[in-house]
Amino acid sequence: MLKADERFFLIDCGEGTQMRLLKYGLNPARIHHIFISHLHGDHVFGLFGLLSTLGMIGRKVPVHLYGPHALEELMQYYSRFFGPLPFELAFVSPPENKNFIYESDKITVTAIPLKHRTPAFGYLFREKDKPLNVIKEQIEAYGLGIADVVKVKRGEDFINESGELIPNSRLTYPPFHKRSYAYISDTVFDPGLAEIVKGVDLLFHEATFSEKDKKLAAQTLHSTAAQAATVAKKAGVQKLLIGHFSTRYKDPLQLEAEAKEIFINTVGVKDGDLYSVPLKRLSGE
Amino acid sequence: MLKADERFFLIDCGEGTQMRLLKYGLNPARIHHIFISHLHGDHVFGLFGLLSTLGMIGRKVPVHLYGPHALEELMQYYSRFFGPLPFELAFVSPPENKNFIYESDKITVTAIPLKHRTPAFGYLFREKDKPLNVIKEQIEAYGLGIADVVKVKRGEDFINESGELIPNSRLTYPPFHKRSYAYISDTVFDPGLAEIVKGVDLLFHEATFSEKDKKLAAQTLHSTAAQAATVAKKAGVQKLLIGHFSTRYKDPLQLEAEAKEIFINTVGVKDGDLYSVPLKRLSGE
Repeated sequence: MLKADERFFLIDCGEGTQMRLLKYGLNPARIHHIFISHLHGDHVFGLFGLLSTLGMIGRKVPVHLYGPHALEELMQYYSRFFGPLPFELAFVSPPENKNFIYESDKITVTAIPLKHRTPAFGYLFREKDKPLNVIKEQIEAYGLGIADVVKVKRGEDFINESGELIPNSRLTYPPFHKRSYAYISDTVFDPGLAEIVKGVDLLFHEATFSEKDKKLAAQTLHSTAAQAATVAKKAGVQKLLIGHFSTRYKDPLQLEAEAKEIFINTVGVKDGDLYSVPLKRLSGE
Repeated sequence: MLKADERFFLIDCGEGTQMRLLKYGLNPARIHHIFISHLHGDHVFGLFGLLSTLGMIGRKVPVHLYGPHALEELMQYYSRFFGPLPFELAFVSPPENKNFIYESDKITVTAIPLKHRTPAFGYLFREKDKPLNVIKEQIEAYGLGIADVVKVKRGEDFINESGELIPNSRLTYPPFHKRSYAYISDTVFDPGLAEIVKGVDLLFHEATFSEKDKKLAAQTLHSTAAQAATVAKKAGVQKLLIGHFSTRYKDPLQLEAEAKEIFINTVGVKDGDLYSVPLKRLSGE
């Protein structure tokens, strides 16, 4: 679950998701957008129960579902067997081009084409430019009016009554950086993904296998921990989260260690872990 | 999950069933027969994940699926979206007549027609007659041969060389009673069910609502705790288990108390509870 722009975005929905939401105190009624990477059971078998529960607790407003085309057809069969849901399911399937599949005032979401055994997409969440914070003392010092403040928040410079240009950077705090999160699961190793997720703050990348099983990874179109780290390093991300570990590995810390040899800021994730991307101001000029 | 005749019978499969099996140390690979009462999510949404997992762990032998006709069609759509399972799904839908839908050397299973918002069936498990245990000392005392012992185990009397008839009851221990378990969920209150589950050792009967909400129970074709107890009392069962409680009741003990006023040997079940039906010898003549 991603919280951004005060909204909750559910990304993939394996069996038991609704129980996990309750366990971690997350209200399913607050979910309006569900992104499904691909139609394999461990990514979608919890969707039926979650949507069914939303209907039971009286949901009326739409749920927006993002995912491969077949997801819409799958949900039509759901209705056929289990009856219509009492709210609208609004489908959006990733387009071939690079347009956003979701956009609000504050964030955009881009689908990332993945190579797996069935059509699959990752998702890249990015904050948009935020209005600049104007330094209160400077408003008075330079005599800015309300209209001037609006312009300065947008990044414009200010010209005072004497015709003197006051550069925006003197009137505002350094801007916040635009936070970003990318989710990549499931996919074969694809170094080309680094270009798409370049410089994100937080990258989740599947790491189903260890490098010693890289043949198996290639055969099943999955990645190894080392390969996930290679993508992260090439993309220059701030932090890498790896997960989706095969149950064959009794100790997932081995996979974390394998990735860390390539990209030190890697964490092997466990159910219930919480990661934040703090807001930081970019350094001023 | 019912264990009978050294086999495991899974009865209904809501979301998270495979996780519960692991939690309680039950090996899903040991399941060969799955009985589905009806196609509502809380009874079937765990089936996709469970079957998918069985495929992943290398299952080759068939899984026998019992349930309404639409279950077979539902699983065809499963295959269409998620690929064929690497083992056979053998379907049996309850027939209109009273034939067993499952039979082994030791037990029989009968489908119980229920009245709910979609085709629904309960299931009645009964042990068959068991061979009698012959009293060792009497074999010697009366000089029984091997062929005689086989006959006596079947219940026949013994005629010795002098032509004297030794009644079976003198040669054998009193027989074990035939244990039985009935599962009834979901259904509107139907006193006629008592005839079908007459005298069973253990009856599970749904009790979604409290008697104070009996209108709601009738509208949604569910039962109240008092109604479940009424069926149990009329049927003269040994013990009643109630469950499937609506989440509106903060304290399910209230529902247990309601049922106990009508049928004292009632237990409100919780996840993970285990109930046994001990083998008892019927009293001799």
